Amino acid sequence: MTERFDRGIEKIKELYGDFGQGFFEDLEDIAPDFGRFIAEFSYGDVFARPGLDMRSRELVIISALTALGTAERQLKAHILGALKIGVNQTEIVEAIIQVAVYAGFPAGFNALMVAKDVFRELGNNSD
Amino acid sequence: MTERFDRGIEKIKELYGDFGQGFFEDLEDIAPDFGRFIAEFSYGDVFARPGLDMRSRELVIISALTALGTAERQLKAHILGALKIGVNQTEIVEAIIQVAVYAGFPAGFNALMVAKDVFRELGNNSD
Amino acid sequence: MTERFDRGIEKIKELYGDFGQGFFEDLEDIAPDFGRFIAEFSYGDVFARPGLDMRSRELVIISALTALGTAERQLKAHILGALKIGVNQTEIVEAIIQVAVYAGFPAGFNALMVAKDVFRELGNNSD
Amino acid sequence: MTERFDRGIEKIKELYGDFGQGFFEDLEDIAPDFGRFIAEFSYGDVFARPGLDMRSRELVIISALTALGTAERQLKAHILGALKIGVNQTEIVEAIIQVAVYAGFPAGFNALMVAKDVFRELGNNSD
Amino acid sequence: MTERFDRGIEKIKELYGDFGQGFFEDLEDIAPDFGRFIAEFSYGDVFARPGLDMRSRELVIISALTALGTAERQLKAHILGALKIGVNQTEIVEAIIQVAVYAGFPAGFNALMVAKDVFRELGNNSD
Amino acid sequence: MTERFDRGIEKIKELYGDFGQGFFEDLEDIAPDFGRFIAEFSYGDVFARPGLDMRSRELVIISALTALGTAERQLKAHILGALKIGVNQTEIVEAIIQVAVYAGFPAGFNALMVAKDVFRELGNNSD
Repeated sequence: MTERFDRGIEKIKELYGDFGQGFFEDLEDIAPDFGRFIAEFSYGDVFARPGLDMRSRELVIISALTALGTAERQLKAHILGALKIGVNQTEIVEAIIQVAVYAGFPAGFNALMVAKDVFRELGNNSD
Repeated sequence: MTERFDRGIEKIKELYGDFGQGFFEDLEDIAPDFGRFIAEFSYGDVFARPGLDMRSRELVIISALTALGTAERQLKAHILGALKIGVNQTEIVEAIIQVAVYAGFPAGFNALMVAKDVFRELGNNSD
Repeated sequence: MTERFDRGIEKIKELYGDFGQGFFEDLEDIAPDFGRFIAEFSYGDVFARPGLDMRSRELVIISALTALGTAERQLKAHILGALKIGVNQTEIVEAIIQVAVYAGFPAGFNALMVAKDVFRELGNNSD
Repeated sequence: MTERFDRGIEKIKELYGDFGQGFFEDLEDIAPDFGRFIAEFSYGDVFARPGLDMRSRELVIISALTALGTAERQLKAHILGALKIGVNQTEIVEAIIQVAVYAGFPAGFNALMVAKDVFRELGNNSD
Repeated sequence: MTERFDRGIEKIKELYGDFGQGFFEDLEDIAPDFGRFIAEFSYGDVFARPGLDMRSRELVIISALTALGTAERQLKAHILGALKIGVNQTEIVEAIIQVAVYAGFPAGFNALMVAKDVFRELGNNSD
Repeated sequence: MTERFDRGIEKIKELYGDFGQGFFEDLEDIAPDFGRFIAEFSYGDVFARPGLDMRSRELVIISALTALGTAERQLKAHILGALKIGVNQTEIVEAIIQVAVYAGFPAGFNALMVAKDVFRELGNNSD
């Protein structure tokens, strides 16, 4: 594989551990190249760029996914990733509440329920 | 007015100066209460909360608006606000590029054009 | 033409007068059948149905278009139509503010600006 | 709590009974302030406003949620609330069909399936 | 029923077999007219038009539904329909990947998971 | 530059000529890397893939952009590109009308207006 791919996979492992791996396995027998694009482009090309720190990148992604409202699985992954690199639960909750002003209360509520599931699974409901 | 209103107006002035004022003036003869809600709720209740710093809040809002793709004027205001409180141009551009992965290239491109207009108007095209 | 077409055109004239005519003229040399579908289906089949009064139908449409945020011209037409059949300005403004809770403040603000333009053009800024 | 909060909670109880309570309980251990905002702002400030009757407000909200297509749980609550305050099943179905013209057939179909579930649970499939 | 209805039903049977039938049955006791509109308008009036071949129409619909991201059941039906009239699995996967560039990676990923389910149910995971 | 970049640029020139060039120029002083990603990823990696012919790819993209409703400039570019590689005006109009069933009449109407502008600018209003 390419350097871009390796850089992307490294970022993904750093962020999501096994949860990220699930996305690739699910793509394996339908569109493995789409998985490769996620690694090479989304993470190797974009996420790995300098100019914005990783914590901010995860808050940015969580905000976009909350606004879209159609990407529950991806939102879950990025909440996990954010926590993994030191974003705390309060910051995630605050970002979602902030987005609700611009994307509506249901978008905010639904994203908070996803966050709640992730926090509960991790067994650390307090910061 | 209320304490919530005053707190909100203070934040809005701190962030957008005269540009923010335009929103209130435009609402004056159609729905002044909606302007009051923006001050009281969006800024007095939500934006002013602790738990997430103001710079992150502006990046979060810019990301949500980029993902929605239907709020050019608001995006312009928040790019202005972000710059005003010390987010640099590179961080804004990086946030938008990051969102493009999740909301599509056109959403990213269009938001970059809004950012470009704001940067140009401010006459500081380099960071 | 068909009975559905005639019923639809009659509704459209009742609601929008000349402004509605503009939509058909704009479609004439690109997709006249799409104009026919608007008359036959949107108005002849759906809008003309019993079970929900016309005033409620216009509020329903204004709400959907406010939530979508991508149909300024259509929103303008339906605000005009709503006023024509006796929905008052306050009801339109209230419907839009109510939708803002669910679709976000920018969706509400932008729809209010469209309503303001319509109210101003009609020269009756007070109810 | 505040007067705004009390006014909102009263409205919510009037509209949704226990179903509304579920939203607050779900928010309790992740973002109780977001629940407070729903009560204070969405219901105490906005829903309780004069100028548009409650029945119209519920039709307006059902239409916005149908158009958004990303808020099944909220749609269910508002269909329940609408029925509770005297909107009949036919009016709800007609509002959804009307929105389908503007937001597409899948948006309409999916909202009708939510309405069907609510009607069935209430055990009153005929008006 | 009308000629439009018969023409629509014929198309639907040709495309989706029993799966299409499920949509009508689900609408029967809530909004049978909405089912009639699907047959008459969506298929009888629009899908049956000349000027664009059926295979392209199905790819067009799959692309729109992938971009919307809120119509999983409809996407499933149209992937089934596309396969039934000779669109191959590779073309469907490629269309979805192509849309991901414009609607974002999550929209693409989620549609690929729907396609994967359909391909698996049909028991023909290879083209 | 890379082979991916060259392959992408070649495709872009083949499809959009000077109009495509405008996108890169507009990005030059704000986010040139985003332009590079469009060339390398959107065209070099995705558009250039085998498994779906170029004409179908352009119809697929036009359909996605019509459904999104937030990418007028990009829609214009892809209608131009589609015509350039032999998709005829009727096929484009039919694809947009077909999408309107799934994304709503305003989405269809607005995309038809963009198509009309492109057809007129090219001075070939008949097929």
